[in-house]
Amino acid sequence: ARELNRRSMACSRYEYVKKYEQDDTILPNVWIVIRIDGKKFHKFSKTHNFEKPNDENALNVMNAAATAVMQEFRDVVLAFGQSDEYSFVFRKDTAAFKRRSAKLLTYVTSLFSTSYVMQWTKWMSVPLAYAPCFDGRVVLYPSNENLRDYLSWRQADVHVNNLYNTAFWKLVLESGFSNQKAEERLRGTLSADKNELLFQEFGLNYNNLPAMYRKGTILLRKRVISSGDNDEKGRQAIVQLHEDLISSHFWKSHTEILGKYV
Amino acid sequence: ARELNRRSMACSRYEYVKKYEQDDTILPNVWIVIRIDGKKFHKFSKTHNFEKPNDENALNVMNAAATAVMQEFRDVVLAFGQSDEYSFVFRKDTAAFKRRSAKLLTYVTSLFSTSYVMQWTKWMSVPLAYAPCFDGRVVLYPSNENLRDYLSWRQADVHVNNLYNTAFWKLVLESGFSNQKAEERLRGTLSADKNELLFQEFGLNYNNLPAMYRKGTILLRKRVISSGDNDEKGRQAIVQLHEDLISSHFWKSHTEILGKYV
Amino acid sequence: ARELNRRSMACSRYEYVKKYEQDDTILPNVWIVIRIDGKKFHKFSKTHNFEKPNDENALNVMNAAATAVMQEFRDVVLAFGQSDEYSFVFRKDTAAFKRRSAKLLTYVTSLFSTSYVMQWTKWMSVPLAYAPCFDGRVVLYPSNENLRDYLSWRQADVHVNNLYNTAFWKLVLESGFSNQKAEERLRGTLSADKNELLFQEFGLNYNNLPAMYRKGTILLRKRVISSGDNDEKGRQAIVQLHEDLISSHFWKSHTEILGKYV
Amino acid sequence: ARELNRRSMACSRYEYVKKYEQDDTILPNVWIVIRIDGKKFHKFSKTHNFEKPNDENALNVMNAAATAVMQEFRDVVLAFGQSDEYSFVFRKDTAAFKRRSAKLLTYVTSLFSTSYVMQWTKWMSVPLAYAPCFDGRVVLYPSNENLRDYLSWRQADVHVNNLYNTAFWKLVLESGFSNQKAEERLRGTLSADKNELLFQEFGLNYNNLPAMYRKGTILLRKRVISSGDNDEKGRQAIVQLHEDLISSHFWKSHTEILGKYV
Repeated sequence: ARELNRRSMACSRYEYVKKYEQDDTILPNVWIVIRIDGKKFHKFSKTHNFEKPNDENALNVMNAAATAVMQEFRDVVLAFGQSDEYSFVFRKDTAAFKRRSAKLLTYVTSLFSTSYVMQWTKWMSVPLAYAPCFDGRVVLYPSNENLRDYLSWRQADVHVNNLYNTAFWKLVLESGFSNQKAEERLRGTLSADKNELLFQEFGLNYNNLPAMYRKGTILLRKRVISSGDNDEKGRQAIVQLHEDLISSHFWKSHTEILGKYV
Repeated sequence: ARELNRRSMACSRYEYVKKYEQDDTILPNVWIVIRIDGKKFHKFSKTHNFEKPNDENALNVMNAAATAVMQEFRDVVLAFGQSDEYSFVFRKDTAAFKRRSAKLLTYVTSLFSTSYVMQWTKWMSVPLAYAPCFDGRVVLYPSNENLRDYLSWRQADVHVNNLYNTAFWKLVLESGFSNQKAEERLRGTLSADKNELLFQEFGLNYNNLPAMYRKGTILLRKRVISSGDNDEKGRQAIVQLHEDLISSHFWKSHTEILGKYV
Repeated sequence: ARELNRRSMACSRYEYVKKYEQDDTILPNVWIVIRIDGKKFHKFSKTHNFEKPNDENALNVMNAAATAVMQEFRDVVLAFGQSDEYSFVFRKDTAAFKRRSAKLLTYVTSLFSTSYVMQWTKWMSVPLAYAPCFDGRVVLYPSNENLRDYLSWRQADVHVNNLYNTAFWKLVLESGFSNQKAEERLRGTLSADKNELLFQEFGLNYNNLPAMYRKGTILLRKRVISSGDNDEKGRQAIVQLHEDLISSHFWKSHTEILGKYV
Repeated sequence: ARELNRRSMACSRYEYVKKYEQDDTILPNVWIVIRIDGKKFHKFSKTHNFEKPNDENALNVMNAAATAVMQEFRDVVLAFGQSDEYSFVFRKDTAAFKRRSAKLLTYVTSLFSTSYVMQWTKWMSVPLAYAPCFDGRVVLYPSNENLRDYLSWRQADVHVNNLYNTAFWKLVLESGFSNQKAEERLRGTLSADKNELLFQEFGLNYNNLPAMYRKGTILLRKRVISSGDNDEKGRQAIVQLHEDLISSHFWKSHTEILGKYV
């Protein structure tokens, strides 16, 4: 018993270590973007035999995990995903977790990660060979223009990568090129060249490929009214879009993201 | 094609947004502790019918997930877990991920999270009802004494909580107290009182309870030589201990943690 | 000689300590405000017999020091001063000192401090009894509205303090109240009450006091054309204003501060 | 009057901007070093005709300014200066200004700056042509070894620079070399070569130069007992030393700096 009393005292004696935790509150009035990236997904996609250049079901797992994050964190107004990455945009004035950076970052990363594993079996036939891992980062954007440019950057990246990958895998899978030969064939080509190659050599009109591969996936929070709903205002749902978000048309169609005035 | 060229240019036009990522390199020569906590695990443990006051298998899931983290991140020299939390200690001079705080934090949190889900079915009979979520934080400790005090603080916390919980659940489950009545009975009692209560009323010598419940779980990296090994030096393994780490005896027995001189 | 060679090696041996300097680059595209405050200026103003409630010459020293800062740091678009404090606004896209926070902060604080001392004798008859000291802080404001609100906050503060101080010192200096009695007399009074008191008891119309006391001092960078100038475009000068900057009129009159569109 | 009430409300309406100030509390239990550097002192020393390679009086101004800082900030245990820079070491457990980084940094920088100006006329015959300016930075060192290495780095820097400068100015001032010729003559030479050059060509034994030029200046806080003191314990004073602090002898002679055990 004596020993135990000593311990209770000990507990408070050690509590000073709590003061070593440092404040990481995020500046108010800036867009908070959390981007998650798969760790070594090149190897991961090989191990699990992802279809090339795009595995629809693997992307569905990503989208399902991201949807789970948006359902949990109500202040995420938009998410954008492609390949093994997903960006989550918290509204400028969010007070979630008192804007503490590590809290926001780890909750999003953790929930995305566990949801990814739990969604896996719904879409994939091969079992998970090992635990996947994602890193996450917080990036702050002060203006609406910055935020749009960030998302445009990610969507332009989808285009550049997917066009290349589409051509690369056509050469490898259909023309029997080695990886190295395919790389050489594409080195220095412009987008127009790759487009032309796909059309001339493989009869493929790039623009007819599924929009999800060409544009990535946008998740938005929308009111949805279905026949069975009692509530006239409908219920909130997370909807998937595969639109161009670089042009202003997107932002005029979804004015709720940036607020009334775009 | 023209459109595509525009896009390639657009890509570089947007790349300025990368510069908004801020450097978060951690100060050299400090202990880096990453602590993970379950989000709303009170509800989670209820939903999944955890045994009270301790669910051995649920703790095994935590320990298995933490072991996966230690196997992946070689610079973690010690991990300490209890209840729904786990602390990972990176050695002072780690250069993992260039000491970037968010990288270290999210990789550990993500891998712990996905490993938790993947380990679940090995230990638990009830399926996961929903995706669990963990938060993580980085705390820095400059001196060895600080680090020891941090770990002592967490282990003293195990003791205080477990003694209380053991008494509480005895009163509820065996004496038929309501939760409220049990709380009232224990309010203001010292450790000695709770020890006495357990012994007098339930014939339980608290010190005979499993060490994992009373001391939490320490994970260390050790060389293990088993009969089948070809290598005379043995192989490295992650071992579980449930020892007192508050006293100096622990640190004298495992001098590799702090370096040669304790 | 041998000793010297050893030292040269020693120099590089020690250079690792440079890596302990941490990056403090400020997020792009936000207003950077540096506010300087006098340390213990209550005592300082007593020691140097500042006139109460306002010492015009002491304010002139402040204004002259701030002007020196604006002349040196071309990216300061506006400064606002009152009492013993001065705020400097760097334009959103400044690249001065690569936006390193400590560099910006200390250069401004240091130059303000040394200029204050050097300007002292130009305005004050009593010599400096000891070295004055100023602290400085960096505050970031993402939007133009935030910046205007910051400056409005500081100017509203001038008003509140100056009205109080004017009434307080009238009571003390002209009505013979003790400091404590004057405080009691003013406790709980609204602005209207203090205005009324000044008018009824001292025949003073508060709005007739010098604008510098009521509104503080705004420093702007303007082109000035004087008769002697050869250059038709005039030369850039720092001008002092004592206007209301809370209302939008100010911002419409000086559109260069926020950019073209206010 | 109405207008004034509106303003009082306005004041609180704007106060939200205070929340944009971010916490910058320094991690506990680390050495806090603040280093101050003269801005463009190459030009400054030319304008004010500093003697080359060392101007004793200009160094005295630096030392006097640093002494003023140590007298004001009692938690500075050691300062080290050379050329146009000074480092101030706050003890590990200082609670000055709640360890807020910008407060510590700007108070030290500001007081050093104003003291420099005020001390100027005591030592220098030429008046100050313009306001000098210093930048400052905060660097954190977790261990005693780190701190010693930091100070050794600065003192080794004195040696390297002073030996070079001594040889350079001998060549320029006594042998009539142009600056460029002197540079060429010294390019690639080792310490031993420069030592030899000084001895052979100028009859100068480098080690006989004043220690302040070769070792820089160390300021320590010591008890001093003078005949006139009533207090037997003496009074605290700031003393100047020009010793080697790279070797352990220094630290054994002044054990109070690091604590009892070195």
